[in-house]
Amino acid sequence: MPLLAEIIPESKRILTDHADLYSYAFDASFGMFLPEVVVQPESTEEVAAIMNLANTYEIPVYPRGQGTSLSGGPLPVQGGIVLDLSNWDDHLLVDPEDMVAVVSPGVLTSDINTAALEFGMIYPPDPSSSHVSTIGGNLAENSGGPRGLKYGVTKDYVIGLEVVTPEGEVIRTGGRTIKNVTGYDLTKLIVGSEGTLGIITEATLRLSPKPRATKTLMALFDDLVNAGAAISKTLQAGILPSKLEIMDHDSINAVEEYEPLGLPTDVEAMLLVELDGHPAAIEDEINNVQDVFAAAGAREVRIAHTKEEENELWRARKLVSPAIVRKKPTKISEDATVPRSKIPDMFARLKEIKNKYKIDLVVFGHAGDGNLHPNIIADKRDHEEMRRVELAVEEIFEAAVELGGTLSGEHGIGTLKAPFMEMELGAIGLDMMKRIKESWDPNNILNPGKIFPKPGQKLVLTDD
Amino acid sequence: MPLLAEIIPESKRILTDHADLYSYAFDASFGMFLPEVVVQPESTEEVAAIMNLANTYEIPVYPRGQGTSLSGGPLPVQGGIVLDLSNWDDHLLVDPEDMVAVVSPGVLTSDINTAALEFGMIYPPDPSSSHVSTIGGNLAENSGGPRGLKYGVTKDYVIGLEVVTPEGEVIRTGGRTIKNVTGYDLTKLIVGSEGTLGIITEATLRLSPKPRATKTLMALFDDLVNAGAAISKTLQAGILPSKLEIMDHDSINAVEEYEPLGLPTDVEAMLLVELDGHPAAIEDEINNVQDVFAAAGAREVRIAHTKEEENELWRARKLVSPAIVRKKPTKISEDATVPRSKIPDMFARLKEIKNKYKIDLVVFGHAGDGNLHPNIIADKRDHEEMRRVELAVEEIFEAAVELGGTLSGEHGIGTLKAPFMEMELGAIGLDMMKRIKESWDPNNILNPGKIFPKPGQKLVLTDD
Repeated sequence: MPLLAEIIPESKRILTDHADLYSYAFDASFGMFLPEVVVQPESTEEVAAIMNLANTYEIPVYPRGQGTSLSGGPLPVQGGIVLDLSNWDDHLLVDPEDMVAVVSPGVLTSDINTAALEFGMIYPPDPSSSHVSTIGGNLAENSGGPRGLKYGVTKDYVIGLEVVTPEGEVIRTGGRTIKNVTGYDLTKLIVGSEGTLGIITEATLRLSPKPRATKTLMALFDDLVNAGAAISKTLQAGILPSKLEIMDHDSINAVEEYEPLGLPTDVEAMLLVELDGHPAAIEDEINNVQDVFAAAGAREVRIAHTKEEENELWRARKLVSPAIVRKKPTKISEDATVPRSKIPDMFARLKEIKNKYKIDLVVFGHAGDGNLHPNIIADKRDHEEMRRVELAVEEIFEAAVELGGTLSGEHGIGTLKAPFMEMELGAIGLDMMKRIKESWDPNNILNPGKIFPKPGQKLVLTDD
Repeated sequence: MPLLAEIIPESKRILTDHADLYSYAFDASFGMFLPEVVVQPESTEEVAAIMNLANTYEIPVYPRGQGTSLSGGPLPVQGGIVLDLSNWDDHLLVDPEDMVAVVSPGVLTSDINTAALEFGMIYPPDPSSSHVSTIGGNLAENSGGPRGLKYGVTKDYVIGLEVVTPEGEVIRTGGRTIKNVTGYDLTKLIVGSEGTLGIITEATLRLSPKPRATKTLMALFDDLVNAGAAISKTLQAGILPSKLEIMDHDSINAVEEYEPLGLPTDVEAMLLVELDGHPAAIEDEINNVQDVFAAAGAREVRIAHTKEEENELWRARKLVSPAIVRKKPTKISEDATVPRSKIPDMFARLKEIKNKYKIDLVVFGHAGDGNLHPNIIADKRDHEEMRRVELAVEEIFEAAVELGGTLSGEHGIGTLKAPFMEMELGAIGLDMMKRIKESWDPNNILNPGKIFPKPGQKLVLTDD
């Protein structure tokens, strides 16, 4: 059995200094966990040898991209080895004929889209972190984004993987074809398994033709229920927007306080709609959306006629995050998702929760697919406030599940939401997942402590 | 432990007569296997009780829809119980706001689309058997169809399932939201698992807005390589056809012999393109396709200007199957799928195989996604011919895998392709699938004898 130093020829790719380890103890969620060693592999063989070693000695291994996870995905909660895959970005090949990109795990997600654009194509999944996050992390978490309604999520674009198993074997799943029904769909099982079933060392991603044009519309509603109806009526009119975002009253007000854009601060909701496609089609369709929205009771509807006007309409949405973090330092960004018809109910439940726990809560998100982002602003040094926040988050999860929705639309379970898995899935549903994990990783060495709760595990929103 | 007769209150839903059993011994592939009993459950509770009983006594259970499988999916190869789910069709609810349909397993696939159309929506997957096949069978096999390139396959439309596990427990996977990253994606694991991991008792299917118009174009090519280039160039021009079908020289000739449509019998390939979407967009795009095809060397390009002309252009494609089965009684319909760029290579390989084994082979299929249908026509009473066919089919699989493709694009593995699984997946890839099966079905009672080959198992194309 070779030592780590024999597997990784360059010593600078094995980090053991406390200062180095410390920078791998965090992600964008909560908690601080020091690994024993950080390794930066740059080939499938290296990853396989590391997993083989770790499996033999039963050492926990935590794969990691850029650490932008909002759910604790890469946190080394049991110490051991962090596999930093963010430097392994040597491979980004676009094949315009097969309309695929083949990528290494450390490639930045937005770079894939940039490379595809050179051939008149796009890589549609666009999580808001795509300029800093790696495709490996996106694959592990099955990242979403605003284009989910029309284009689907990361998983919908993955057709083949190379994967190192927890026991250090290399397998290939799927391939280079859109259609493939040869055996179980391991590709779609591994994507979104949060690094618990295997380490993705290469991915083949499907690309789409670049839409020729886009068109943006903004609408203000005095009544949230009307905004919900406007969304449904648009879709029923045969129009499938590429983006359909919502901002609630408090989001709008937070933005206006941060940078006055002249938005009315007394409306209940703002909708932002982007259409993409053939110029003649979207020109016609955007007018249909305007009519549908007006009929649904919009106070005001504005269509962007130039690229500048388009950017201006999107500006409010872009400013939400900077606006709210200025108020208090700690942002708890949730992604509870409900069926589209339940969006008004979910907003009502969120308002109740906000009042009950006296928390700072704004709601925005991807209304077209029911994927809301209730964001709580707090100060994690204020333990009393954080206790209220924990209770509020628990109730947000309960509300989503009660309304037929899910704990997580795009951020993943990680450590943060593990305590709530059984609430959504039931004991047997969760057990069927655990059976897969145990059959693939009998020594439980790959990203242990994620997804599956320990008995009695509770939500903890502190770094202590 | 209750007896079957206590689980199923009506005795007419338990079949034991030889004549009845005989009609469940076949599907649309090869082989004849008599079950011991056929049960027709009509509720989740009945299915759960049957599985519980079967698991206790280790009796094989074979779920079945309408038996249209081309790969042996429902064949009761080890006897036992056939679960005939084709009568359980009481549930077909369309929710226009959430844009979903909730269906029982026995609902006919085409009925879902019909129900969706009433609300201005469509259920896009359209396998050619959709007027006779059940959604349960389509889910088990992850059926494809001609719309795969633009719309994806069955799996892409399933967002939630109710499933009875091999041990008789009831679980729910996914839900009613498009985005869901709560734990492993059991939905997409079960869809396409060919009835080996669980019995689907209800499914929640995503619907799409109905496209407002369609437009069809037919083109003839003297050279297959030019036809391939025409396809790639179309996609690279930002045009994503809803259908993109190919017929080879022999398919065209078989049709002309069967019913003269006036097609030239000396061309190498015919392409049929359907665009759907906004009328203005597809009007413009169909002209683009015409230009692209002409530039790529098409001998002739024809655009349909009326619905009648559209039907006429599609008529040749519709006649392929009736035309070829008139020549000889046994049709072996394969679905080997290759990356789009390898279509010309695959045609060349198929031509070699045809000549080498002196078989009757025509090729047509879904060229846009590389999903070809090499169809061999033979007479299964002619054992010498069938032996040549078996060897030819083996070589077709080898060719597909060598060209970076897959054994099966949409028909499934079943019994027929099980012997070739390791060739595509490798021993370890196959073992990782088997681990999942064993962890879910430790007694191996659910659809045993499918997907996973027995040691030394060979392709057999007879009913003996």
